[in-house]
Amino acid sequence: MTERGSGGPAVRTVLQQCLQARLQVEPAEEDREARFVQIHRGMVIYVCFFKGATDDILPKTVSTLLSLRLCESTTGRLVSVSELPGSLLIVPQATLGGRARGRAMQYHSNISKEEGQRLYGAFVSLCEKELLAAAAGTGVQVTVQHGTYGNRQVLQLDTNGPYTHLMEF
Amino acid sequence: MTERGSGGPAVRTVLQQCLQARLQVEPAEEDREARFVQIHRGMVIYVCFFKGATDDILPKTVSTLLSLRLCESTTGRLVSVSELPGSLLIVPQATLGGRARGRAMQYHSNISKEEGQRLYGAFVSLCEKELLAAAAGTGVQVTVQHGTYGNRQVLQLDTNGPYTHLMEF
Repeated sequence: MTERGSGGPAVRTVLQQCLQARLQVEPAEEDREARFVQIHRGMVIYVCFFKGATDDILPKTVSTLLSLRLCESTTGRLVSVSELPGSLLIVPQATLGGRARGRAMQYHSNISKEEGQRLYGAFVSLCEKELLAAAAGTGVQVTVQHGTYGNRQVLQLDTNGPYTHLMEF
Repeated sequence: MTERGSGGPAVRTVLQQCLQARLQVEPAEEDREARFVQIHRGMVIYVCFFKGATDDILPKTVSTLLSLRLCESTTGRLVSVSELPGSLLIVPQATLGGRARGRAMQYHSNISKEEGQRLYGAFVSLCEKELLAAAAGTGVQVTVQHGTYGNRQVLQLDTNGPYTHLMEF
């Protein structure tokens, strides 16, 4: 049984444009420094899956996010991240599924950790496939970087205006 | 006539925790460098008002945002930004009201610029009043900084995990 029947979304994303973004993917340990991934110009996608989300939702989600005109080109025209072309930093963000109950946030609608991790991996793979295909032949080097599911998302962001958008699917 | 009857929210906020955040409040001009405001530890509030939003919604919005347990204390316990106490950076973000139509974003549900500017000013004032009252006597210096309504929101963010939350009122 899922909660999708209530009409809630299966996927919630928050999108921000960036000039540069850096995310820790492995925390520091005794004998090792923390490891980071980084993108330059492009888009940060914070993503959260709800109970009932399945692979079926991913193709539409990814093609929409990559084709929405959310990025400012050098001439000031709005283009998609695929058209720019820009890079992607994908940040798993289960907190986006939170609902306030009194002063505390609850996450009862979030998908299970195992299912979320699997969908997150499939989401990242599809973003890579679509963005790299779109950028092929443009001569611009783009990359898809992503955080580790379940980790603390230590993030640095540098924007020329984040143009924060909410998109649910 | 407003669109509130459709059951949509009056205010949409996205909340991120930060170690440091910096926002441009005046762009550079020929004879002047850009001017920035900055906070250290605390919370970034991105805020967007929809058609039909009125002053009535502000007290509940502000008291909820300032009392929700979204911040990690030095001991790892979740506390509110008032309890931390931390600072606030308030970013007007009309893009949060966007809806996709095809590949373009539309903002037809957003409040008018004049009304939005007025509500934004009242929202900032109320945040200042409540946060400074809550922090009084703690000996911790906190501040409420905010962007200029209608400007490009050139933002730099440094987090130890943004814990991005969506809250609508």
